[in-house]
Amino acid sequence: MNVLLVYAHPEPRSLNGSIRDFIVDRFVGAGHAVEVSDLYAMGWKASLDADDFPQRDATRPFSAGADSKQAFAEGTQTADVAAEQDKLRRADLVIFQFPLWWFSMPAIMKGWFDRVYAYGFAYGVGEHSEKRWGERYGEGAFKGKRAMLVVTTGGWAEHYSARGINGPIEDLLFPIQHGMLFYPGFDVLPPFLVFKSSAMDSTRHADTLDALGARLDNAMQLAPIAYRSQNRGDYLIPALTLKPGLGANRSGFALHRRDEEAADAAGGKLNGRRAGDEMRPMRAL
Amino acid sequence: MNVLLVYAHPEPRSLNGSIRDFIVDRFVGAGHAVEVSDLYAMGWKASLDADDFPQRDATRPFSAGADSKQAFAEGTQTADVAAEQDKLRRADLVIFQFPLWWFSMPAIMKGWFDRVYAYGFAYGVGEHSEKRWGERYGEGAFKGKRAMLVVTTGGWAEHYSARGINGPIEDLLFPIQHGMLFYPGFDVLPPFLVFKSSAMDSTRHADTLDALGARLDNAMQLAPIAYRSQNRGDYLIPALTLKPGLGANRSGFALHRRDEEAADAAGGKLNGRRAGDEMRPMRAL
Repeated sequence: MNVLLVYAHPEPRSLNGSIRDFIVDRFVGAGHAVEVSDLYAMGWKASLDADDFPQRDATRPFSAGADSKQAFAEGTQTADVAAEQDKLRRADLVIFQFPLWWFSMPAIMKGWFDRVYAYGFAYGVGEHSEKRWGERYGEGAFKGKRAMLVVTTGGWAEHYSARGINGPIEDLLFPIQHGMLFYPGFDVLPPFLVFKSSAMDSTRHADTLDALGARLDNAMQLAPIAYRSQNRGDYLIPALTLKPGLGANRSGFALHRRDEEAADAAGGKLNGRRAGDEMRPMRAL
Repeated sequence: MNVLLVYAHPEPRSLNGSIRDFIVDRFVGAGHAVEVSDLYAMGWKASLDADDFPQRDATRPFSAGADSKQAFAEGTQTADVAAEQDKLRRADLVIFQFPLWWFSMPAIMKGWFDRVYAYGFAYGVGEHSEKRWGERYGEGAFKGKRAMLVVTTGGWAEHYSARGINGPIEDLLFPIQHGMLFYPGFDVLPPFLVFKSSAMDSTRHADTLDALGARLDNAMQLAPIAYRSQNRGDYLIPALTLKPGLGANRSGFALHRRDEEAADAAGGKLNGRRAGDEMRPMRAL
């Protein structure tokens, strides 16, 4: 298969650098093709602006949406953006690896999404009617592809736990996993998390890579996070609110996962747990 | 008072441009001093990297934390970063205005936080012991200052409502409001939200500015979001998990708001509502 690794860390001689190398070696060793978008090494332009659309009509006000739509349709995007889109088209699996800075991705990776996710490519796709509201959240350009986050944090697993002060890590990552990955059609795998990244000794480093290797080997078999599809009957259209009766006893982001419902239907056997919990071996490290 | 407006939109002739001008005029008209960090106009460098620390020892691997700590302590940060820190020191109220791109801020503003929030300034401050875990979440450099988001979205208010497919807007903004603003000590005001930004006619535009003006006039009187302070007894230290018995019937981000508890104590009078709900006049626009 084809793997794309989108990677954002400024220092190759770092924990993240060693993880990046491990990911590449693991996939290449298994006979897969790997492309790496090393955003710092590429000098990736982070800020979306009018310069991204060199052939736009400069007498009109710049519009991130309208100018993106036109440039994507007419093939007049900048070469760096078009190249990343081609990498996405080729990929079966996309891994986004970054250190958690201020509870989100580094600016340079946010700028990858802002610029590569063009209108007509990652959003603004499909009909809007009383039955469908665009091809998104379960449909879209990346339907059939898989995506996974590999994230390091300086903080402790407890600080990101269900009652931890930072907020649960799965909720902090929801705007990324649901909003940036599931939205344009990716099946999103549970994230691979490495906590206490600045207190990593050689034993834990080796254990971390072992666990990561197992995750990578299993990436095409692993069950994705069970987010609800937008156009398959769970939501009112066009309000896009979850239909009454669904998601009982849930609130917030958890409403948008089908497995919570399944847990209820299963007589509470899984109650209080979320799918993917068992896939977070690094939580305790 | 001194107001700092940190603003990220690439086009002055836009809805956001008109809101920026309105904010400046409103505060200046009321006799306040206003500084504007117009990140696109400034050509703000978005990506944190080793170039931000020109006097660092280049023979060692770059460390975002360690190099930031040293440069901040020794006064060897770049001039653009030091200037923004000085603006923060002068400000009584800081407004962050941006369009919601992919459920977060544009990369250029994320890069403002990544670079301006130095180690020793916005994090890594204070003693870590069994009673305190640094000066953060209710303490820190910005204690006594207020901050507020002004955010535009293309999506509808319903899509960002409690059961909306995008997730509740207050939860999507938690990593920013709690993680980037409350963390270094700001009192965080409820956000001012403008939905359906691409379908703005002159009547709704005028109504929006009227409502924003009222919010700005009241910015120093308005009750901030009641996030829980880290070191005042609500959390176990160093696990930083909310103590057993607190936040009953809540989960996720809502655990970290004191007003949910107060609502319970008040006999459910406010049950199911969150403080700040009444401060979102733009939800319905």
